Amino acid sequence: MPLWNIYHPVDAYTAEEKQEMAKRITDMYYVLPRFYVGVLFHEQPKDSFFMGGQKRDDFVRIRLDHFARHMSSDAERTTNWLKRADEAIAPFVRDRGYHYELHIGETPRELWLIDGIHPPRANTAAEQRWKSENQPSPFGPEEG
Amino acid sequence: MPLWNIYHPVDAYTAEEKQEMAKRITDMYYVLPRFYVGVLFHEQPKDSFFMGGQKRDDFVRIRLDHFARHMSSDAERTTNWLKRADEAIAPFVRDRGYHYELHIGETPRELWLIDGIHPPRANTAAEQRWKSENQPSPFGPEEG
Amino acid sequence: MPLWNIYHPVDAYTAEEKQEMAKRITDMYYVLPRFYVGVLFHEQPKDSFFMGGQKRDDFVRIRLDHFARHMSSDAERTTNWLKRADEAIAPFVRDRGYHYELHIGETPRELWLIDGIHPPRANTAAEQRWKSENQPSPFGPEEG
Repeated sequence: MPLWNIYHPVDAYTAEEKQEMAKRITDMYYVLPRFYVGVLFHEQPKDSFFMGGQKRDDFVRIRLDHFARHMSSDAERTTNWLKRADEAIAPFVRDRGYHYELHIGETPRELWLIDGIHPPRANTAAEQRWKSENQPSPFGPEEG
Repeated sequence: MPLWNIYHPVDAYTAEEKQEMAKRITDMYYVLPRFYVGVLFHEQPKDSFFMGGQKRDDFVRIRLDHFARHMSSDAERTTNWLKRADEAIAPFVRDRGYHYELHIGETPRELWLIDGIHPPRANTAAEQRWKSENQPSPFGPEEG
Repeated sequence: MPLWNIYHPVDAYTAEEKQEMAKRITDMYYVLPRFYVGVLFHEQPKDSFFMGGQKRDDFVRIRLDHFARHMSSDAERTTNWLKRADEAIAPFVRDRGYHYELHIGETPRELWLIDGIHPPRANTAAEQRWKSENQPSPFGPEEG
């Protein structure tokens, strides 16, 4: 459900570091089937990366979408989530001297497909099976 | 109106295949001026492409926006549309062994410009002219 | 707050031109702390850039998000803003023969972090300080 697009300086992260960062991000969504979590890294050259009209090679800009669960109308949940997100990525941003900015879009759960299947509703038997099997599979109306 | 961003493995598609896939996607939006439909392909190296915390080179991740028409509040229309979208892209994903996930954001029609012109409202004379001429042109308040 | 993603033909702009375009875009948001404005340029090869099902190397496709301020429910403000946006980018699109399309998502202000801090509300003392210092800093509940 979430899709993270991470725009970072060229050579900011090794393959191992990207793996570890993706794992930490994926771990945040422990209520969801693990395979829902997408993380895409994009190298962004300094002369194509502007914050405040200044070229930057010390900045990580993250844009993500949520669609399996929405939270923006719940202030406490949002605050907690943002705190956990900050902790999840801290070793890859502030701990190594990068500034960062992150913002989240909430897109309609209805408009979503995985391998041709519209995923089951939250907290249903089918979602639970997808989670335990860590892959999508067909389900009937009584399940999802 | 729609903008499709398709993140795919390196060398997944030839130029001809991208052309054909873009054509099939564009054909889906037969009610709209054809030039509204944008499709951008992005090669995503395996070590920068994570689903469920796993590196993937067998996955196509699609993120698109709709803004000329919205549909998420209409369950039947949404179901039909997702089915057609799945059929449109099937030859480029499951038929060649790629898994895929797709989700759609709905952004405000008001916040949209083509060549400096805010496009005409749905089903107006101006939209009809844009469709038949397949290009934008100025229009008056009585037309659009 | 705004994040502009600009997909443009390969070699469309020099580093100096990107700098100037980013500056003009940033200048538009004069009410905001300057460092809120992000502009990312992405070269998009002709065979991966389709509008209306046609390959294009004369087109600039811009997708941005707004989250510090929303405006789509205010028709007059939206019209004025789109006019200014068109003027800001005109020297880099129509004045050099490129067509363009731009659309804007409005994402929840609540779901936003800069260097681990959720930015202050609009028109508060803390936002004013962030603006005058052009960088984020901690603030208390009475300030932001």
